[in-house]
Amino acid sequence: MRKTVLILAGVVVLTVLTAVLHFAHVEPVAVFVVAGAALGGLAWVISIATESVGDRFGPAVTGALQSTLGNLPELFIVLFALSAGELVVARTSIMGSLFANGLLVLGLTIIAGARAAPDGVMRFRTRLPQDTTTLLLLTIAIIVLLGLSDQVGDRASKHATTISVIGAVVLLVVFTIWLLDYLRSDEPAEEAHSEKARSPLPFKAAIAVLAVSGLAAALVSDWFVEALDPAVKSLGISKAFTGLVIVAIAGNAVENVVGITLAAKRRSDLAISIVKNSVAQISAFLFPALVLCSLAFDTRLTFVLTPVFIGALVVMAVAMWQITGDGRAIVFEGAALVGAYIVLATLMWYE
Amino acid sequence: MRKTVLILAGVVVLTVLTAVLHFAHVEPVAVFVVAGAALGGLAWVISIATESVGDRFGPAVTGALQSTLGNLPELFIVLFALSAGELVVARTSIMGSLFANGLLVLGLTIIAGARAAPDGVMRFRTRLPQDTTTLLLLTIAIIVLLGLSDQVGDRASKHATTISVIGAVVLLVVFTIWLLDYLRSDEPAEEAHSEKARSPLPFKAAIAVLAVSGLAAALVSDWFVEALDPAVKSLGISKAFTGLVIVAIAGNAVENVVGITLAAKRRSDLAISIVKNSVAQISAFLFPALVLCSLAFDTRLTFVLTPVFIGALVVMAVAMWQITGDGRAIVFEGAALVGAYIVLATLMWYE
Amino acid sequence: MRKTVLILAGVVVLTVLTAVLHFAHVEPVAVFVVAGAALGGLAWVISIATESVGDRFGPAVTGALQSTLGNLPELFIVLFALSAGELVVARTSIMGSLFANGLLVLGLTIIAGARAAPDGVMRFRTRLPQDTTTLLLLTIAIIVLLGLSDQVGDRASKHATTISVIGAVVLLVVFTIWLLDYLRSDEPAEEAHSEKARSPLPFKAAIAVLAVSGLAAALVSDWFVEALDPAVKSLGISKAFTGLVIVAIAGNAVENVVGITLAAKRRSDLAISIVKNSVAQISAFLFPALVLCSLAFDTRLTFVLTPVFIGALVVMAVAMWQITGDGRAIVFEGAALVGAYIVLATLMWYE
Repeated sequence: MRKTVLILAGVVVLTVLTAVLHFAHVEPVAVFVVAGAALGGLAWVISIATESVGDRFGPAVTGALQSTLGNLPELFIVLFALSAGELVVARTSIMGSLFANGLLVLGLTIIAGARAAPDGVMRFRTRLPQDTTTLLLLTIAIIVLLGLSDQVGDRASKHATTISVIGAVVLLVVFTIWLLDYLRSDEPAEEAHSEKARSPLPFKAAIAVLAVSGLAAALVSDWFVEALDPAVKSLGISKAFTGLVIVAIAGNAVENVVGITLAAKRRSDLAISIVKNSVAQISAFLFPALVLCSLAFDTRLTFVLTPVFIGALVVMAVAMWQITGDGRAIVFEGAALVGAYIVLATLMWYE
Repeated sequence: MRKTVLILAGVVVLTVLTAVLHFAHVEPVAVFVVAGAALGGLAWVISIATESVGDRFGPAVTGALQSTLGNLPELFIVLFALSAGELVVARTSIMGSLFANGLLVLGLTIIAGARAAPDGVMRFRTRLPQDTTTLLLLTIAIIVLLGLSDQVGDRASKHATTISVIGAVVLLVVFTIWLLDYLRSDEPAEEAHSEKARSPLPFKAAIAVLAVSGLAAALVSDWFVEALDPAVKSLGISKAFTGLVIVAIAGNAVENVVGITLAAKRRSDLAISIVKNSVAQISAFLFPALVLCSLAFDTRLTFVLTPVFIGALVVMAVAMWQITGDGRAIVFEGAALVGAYIVLATLMWYE
Repeated sequence: MRKTVLILAGVVVLTVLTAVLHFAHVEPVAVFVVAGAALGGLAWVISIATESVGDRFGPAVTGALQSTLGNLPELFIVLFALSAGELVVARTSIMGSLFANGLLVLGLTIIAGARAAPDGVMRFRTRLPQDTTTLLLLTIAIIVLLGLSDQVGDRASKHATTISVIGAVVLLVVFTIWLLDYLRSDEPAEEAHSEKARSPLPFKAAIAVLAVSGLAAALVSDWFVEALDPAVKSLGISKAFTGLVIVAIAGNAVENVVGITLAAKRRSDLAISIVKNSVAQISAFLFPALVLCSLAFDTRLTFVLTPVFIGALVVMAVAMWQITGDGRAIVFEGAALVGAYIVLATLMWYE
């Protein structure tokens, strides 16, 4: 409880500091760094508050709420990027979150989990990995079809927005069907156990924290995106690398730490569940929701991506499925996922 | 028995009506619609007649015969399209049949089967899904290699016909090896059961019906393809959409209804078997057979396809494998397959 | 023992003959053919000698050593090709070895194994097939990312060498982690059995044979590559076909014969292990090691490949996984792999 309050205070300080730096018009690199840290902290606060609110509803609802609201900062980053006309930042943020979760975090979680297991084999239920693969494959189906149509430049490529909207609706419907079924078939055993391990806030306090931190996340995201462009220019880092690696790791820092810590404590199912839920949500909920939201902006987000991203997505989906689909994973499999992320990050460095 | 005779009469009426409309040179849209309905009916008649003939041979042979002859109308459509120089219609018909069966029908069958199951999980043997994936992967190997060679425009791309012919022979050999082994390892339990459920025709009547309906299918296909071009133009629908969606759903209507009905009756294995057999046959028998047949025409059919079709094929094969390879499927997985089909159909609408 | 000595003598004769023909400047086709046969023989000698040396270390170390040193001739071929500036030969040799092992040899091994099994189903442990798929997927991730970047011609494509070097280091690290774990978790049952079946050389003799045959392999590879260019020209065969099919089958002849023979004797696990180890080594050890070695030459080897090779690699990896991932394989699955190889070889013939 006390530790929670201390960290909360730290996040408040970071948020206020971001505001001060932003309005003082200091060097954008400083705003960028502090805002990134504040966003990571806010994601953690939202995750804690949701968990506390979720005590009223049971563990599966909590898990789903947690992932959904935990993605709030990313949602705001992409929305502000779109309203600022920064389509490349918007796209790379979404892709970056997917790759950070599906390759880096999953890989590190597997390494931690397999090292903690007495026989070196991390074991977990196969339901969620399989379902995540299915959702990811549907997103990829839309992305591959639109991407190839765009590359060829055929007639359909001129209707990418319309097709993306229909694809987004299809994805959201399938995601909803899945989520309802997933929540219904909840097996509380391990997750209920986890609830006690943490020390959540009282219900009313949690609601208040949720509202405030949600608002703060929106503001900080705005300042973060505003500082991004000049900061990156003065640092000489490519925009693709910033979006795909820096923003992605900042925006998913908490999920990452929680996932890896749980895996090291041999709570394999919960660890895998957090990482996989995140991947499922980003690909089949956040991405299509943002495509629909972007209809309100001048800059439209579609499912059209560059070939390198499409290739990386396909390889990631197949690798995730191959490695986690059998409910067993060993150290080298985690290392292979991390390795793929390193190569991808290297490529983005030079873009 | 009585119901069968009534439906038979309906199909005869539709077929005669198509002939009348065709020779009366009425509005092509009318010919197109009636011929489409007649083709669907003839497919059903051929399926019933084959089943009755198959009583002499046992269930596995029946199933194989049923799929093979059930694809007769599609075979004729493609042949007539090729002889009329309509390469796009020929290609999209084959692709459309694959996508209709592998995405739409499989998806609906899974939804029906999972809803009928007491625990919401449709269960079936994994042998056929795995074998179908293998056959589909071999077809895709040929298509991907030729497609990439064609896109790059390297030296081999000038020999696409020769390479396609060798690929077709390879596919037919592998398909034959598979079919012989599959028929030999037949497990009649459920299928034998199914035989009694229907009321087949007497052997001699069945043979006669088979001959007549085969001939009728050939004629109606010819008229259908002839009416296709002007009908589509006056309706303002893209040719790709017509071939890929309308012709495909008409040509596979019966398999569809039978598959979904069986799944709803919890006869999962038989339902999956009909859909999967259809996919296996089209990809590894009908397609290569048509490539070889087309050597007799001026318009050669090869395995060279547009990138969008190649991408859709690869995604479909992987999704089918991922969803049915474990012998279990739930509602959202069926919804994902149907969703992928909707997105593909939308794309084709704009081509 | 006696048979071994006789074959050894034959290999010595072939090697000497290659030297004589090379320095006598005879028709390059003759040098090419004799050198190819000598290389095959030297691969076999190295494999026997390694096995004998390995008696000191146990079966898993032996297997790993055997594959590694068995790939020596290929290593030299590629090195000499690179130093001669023959980038196409270098690349196609590596790809050819992968395809020969992963499609042709695996397919023939499965056909032999399934035919030998009483119920027509070859059964084997799934660990190695799964691990090989993971390693292959990591290699493919690098190749796909670089290949797409190269096709698009984006900024990163100008740094293909740097990215390849980082990718190579990542691959070697992951491969080492895997190998150490694989050797540690060795299950000697069957492999120990195999040791007695053969008649290995005494330890010191084996060391001597190893040194001499390694040196001989280096020399013969040099002459082979030198004769390649004029020989292929005078035969009128495409360079791609030579590298991908002829060199590949010559360089892997022994693994092939051993794998198929073991499968026919129902030693499924060992047979699959040799083929899979070979694929894993080439993709995750030999290829990245050669990328690093090539830094010493003017001609740099990168992971950038032509689209046809990338497509073939992806299809091969998925097919290998789909067919062997479940620990069971039947005749038609082997036939499908061989069929894919035939189509690939046909395509290369026309390049």
